[in-house]
Amino acid sequence: MFPKTIEWRDERIFLLDQRRLPEEEVYLECADAAAVAEAIRTLAIRGAPAIGIAAAMGIALGALRIDKRDFPSFFHELLSICDTLRQTRPTAVNLRWALQKMKGVCEAHKGMDVGVIKERLVQEALAILEEDIETNKMIGKAGKDLIQDGDTILTHCNAGALATGGYGTALGVVRRAWEEKKGIKVIATETRPLLQGARLTAWELKKEGIPVTLITDHMAGYLMQRGEIDLVIVGADRIARNGDVANKIGTYTLAILAREHSIPFYVAAPLSTFDQTIAMGEEIPIEERGEEEVIAFGGERIVPEGISIRNPAFDITPHRYVSAIVTEKGVIRPPLEEGLRRIWGEGYEG
Amino acid sequence: MFPKTIEWRDERIFLLDQRRLPEEEVYLECADAAAVAEAIRTLAIRGAPAIGIAAAMGIALGALRIDKRDFPSFFHELLSICDTLRQTRPTAVNLRWALQKMKGVCEAHKGMDVGVIKERLVQEALAILEEDIETNKMIGKAGKDLIQDGDTILTHCNAGALATGGYGTALGVVRRAWEEKKGIKVIATETRPLLQGARLTAWELKKEGIPVTLITDHMAGYLMQRGEIDLVIVGADRIARNGDVANKIGTYTLAILAREHSIPFYVAAPLSTFDQTIAMGEEIPIEERGEEEVIAFGGERIVPEGISIRNPAFDITPHRYVSAIVTEKGVIRPPLEEGLRRIWGEGYEG
Repeated sequence: MFPKTIEWRDERIFLLDQRRLPEEEVYLECADAAAVAEAIRTLAIRGAPAIGIAAAMGIALGALRIDKRDFPSFFHELLSICDTLRQTRPTAVNLRWALQKMKGVCEAHKGMDVGVIKERLVQEALAILEEDIETNKMIGKAGKDLIQDGDTILTHCNAGALATGGYGTALGVVRRAWEEKKGIKVIATETRPLLQGARLTAWELKKEGIPVTLITDHMAGYLMQRGEIDLVIVGADRIARNGDVANKIGTYTLAILAREHSIPFYVAAPLSTFDQTIAMGEEIPIEERGEEEVIAFGGERIVPEGISIRNPAFDITPHRYVSAIVTEKGVIRPPLEEGLRRIWGEGYEG
Repeated sequence: MFPKTIEWRDERIFLLDQRRLPEEEVYLECADAAAVAEAIRTLAIRGAPAIGIAAAMGIALGALRIDKRDFPSFFHELLSICDTLRQTRPTAVNLRWALQKMKGVCEAHKGMDVGVIKERLVQEALAILEEDIETNKMIGKAGKDLIQDGDTILTHCNAGALATGGYGTALGVVRRAWEEKKGIKVIATETRPLLQGARLTAWELKKEGIPVTLITDHMAGYLMQRGEIDLVIVGADRIARNGDVANKIGTYTLAILAREHSIPFYVAAPLSTFDQTIAMGEEIPIEERGEEEVIAFGGERIVPEGISIRNPAFDITPHRYVSAIVTEKGVIRPPLEEGLRRIWGEGYEG
C-alpha cells in the first residue's frame, strides 16, 4: 500500500507533511487557499502531479470561502486565488494545468448559482485526485515491460506516491514490476539539497517492501561503471514539445552518465506534465530556491559565512538523452517530438 | 596565507582537526603513532599528500617511543608501527610511499646507533613536509597557464593546503593563478557525504580571498550546460601507470560531464601520488567507508531505519577523460602513459 499524500475531508485539506518524513507521519491541515499555497511553497507537498492536485483542491477550498454571490465578483476573487497559487512554484507545469482546469469549470458554469459552481469545483478537485491515481496505474502498466526480472533500477528524487495523488509515476512503473513479482532492486540517490531520495523514496519503497539501497548523488557514475545499474527511471516537472525534460537538479547528469554507459534512461510522467505551449527545454523557467537549503543541514551550518551559494532546483535534460517517455497513453520512443504529436493529436489539449 | 595542516613540535604532532572545520580551528595533539593512525582513520587529517606526511611523522614519533637499543629489535617494532599506519586507508598511495621512504632511512643507517636513526627519521619526516609544500608550489607554477584571466574553475572535494603540507595541488594551481592577479572564480562542489568541499575548500579559499561559490554535487552538469564553467581541476589519491586516476567519489562523473561539454578536465598531483606498480585503475583498491557517513547529518538521521547504504569513498577516472596531469615536473598531456614514462625515466622510483 502507498501512503495517502493528500486528502479532502470536511471542507479541509490534509497533506502528509513531507518536510517531517521519515521521522514523523504527520498530516498538515489547511483551512484555506493561502495555507495550501504556503504548503506548496515550503515543500510540505512537492512533486509535479501532487502540486497540481493540491492547487486544484486549494482553489476549491478558496472558492468555498468566497462570500460573493454574483458570478463576476466570485470569479474575480477566484482568479486572485489562482494567481497566488500559480506563483508558488514556477517549473512544474501541472500546477498551471490544474488551475486551467478549475477556471474552465467556472467558465462552463457561469450561468449557474455560485453555490452550484462551488460544488462543481470541489467535485473537479476530487476527480483530479482520483484520475491522477488511475493515470499513474496506467503509466505503471504501460511501462512494465521496461523492467526485467533481476533488474537494478536507479531513480532520483521522489517520483512516487508522495509526488502524486498516489502510486507514483517513475515509482509507479517500479511498483507495477514489483506487483508482477519481478525480482528487482532500487538504488535511490539521496538528492541534495533536500534529500527527497533519502527521506521520501527510501521510506516509500521500504513501506512497500521493495529492496532499496541509498547512495549519495555522486556515486551513480561509480555504480554504472561497475555494471551495477540496469536502467534509470525518473519523473518530470515539465516536458516540452520536443521531449526535453525539466526534472529535479541532477537528472541531466544521470542522463549523461546513463548514455555514457549505454544504460536506458526513462522518464515517466502523466500528460498533465507536458507543456504544448513551448517548443524546447530552454524555455522552461528554472526555479532558484533559497541558499538556506544548501547552507545548513539538520540545523547545523556546514558552510563558512560569506560564501556564495547556487541552488537551482531543476535542470533540463535534452530529449536526445531520453530513451523513452512513459505516459498513461503508452511508451513514447524517439523521435519523441513525433510520438508526442501523435498523442496530442488524440485529443490532449495541454 | 594558507593554514598549517600539520606541525611537529616538542616531540608531538599537531594536526588541524578537519572534522571540526569550518566551525572551529582546533589542533589535535598526537603523542604517539597510534594517535596518528586514529587521526588518519577518522579523517581528522585527510588528502593523499597530507596523509603521507602524517604517516611519516607518525613513524618518527613512534620511533622515538621505542625503547629497544639494538637495531633488529628496534626495526621490528618500527615495522609493526608501519603496518598499523598502512592499514588506516587503502586508496591513497602517498601513505605507502611515505612508509617506504621512512623504512629506507632505517635500512640506510642500520649500522648506526638507534638514537642517530631516530634523529634521522625525524629529519626525514620534516623534510617530507617541507618538500611537499615546495612540490605544490612547483605544481602551481607548472599549471599556471592552464588558467586564464576571467576563468571560472570547478573543483571537487578539497585538494588544497588542507589536503597537503600546504599550498595545495589542484588549489595550488588556483592559488598561483590568483597570486598572478588573474580574475578567477571557483565553484566548489560540496562533496557528499563528508562535505570536504563545503567545509574545507570554501573555508580555505575564503581565507585567501578567492571568490568561491558552493553548489551541491549534482549541480555541476547544470552549470556546464549553461556555459558557466571554463575548466575542472581536481587532485588525486592514486594514479596508475596508464594515467587512470583514483580520486574522491564523484570525480569520474565530473570528468564525463566535462568531456560532454568540451571543458578541460585537469588533475594536479605530486609524483608521490603515482603508483608505478600498477598498470591501470581497476587495480586500485577503493575504500568503502561506514554507512554512518551517509545516514546521518549533523547528528540527525536522514534515512529511515533498515535501508541499505553504499559508501565508496573514491572512484576511478579512466585516463581517456583526463586532459592533462599537472605534476611538479610539468604538465603531462595525452598520451598520458608515455608522458608518465618519460618522467619516471628521469629518476622517479615510485
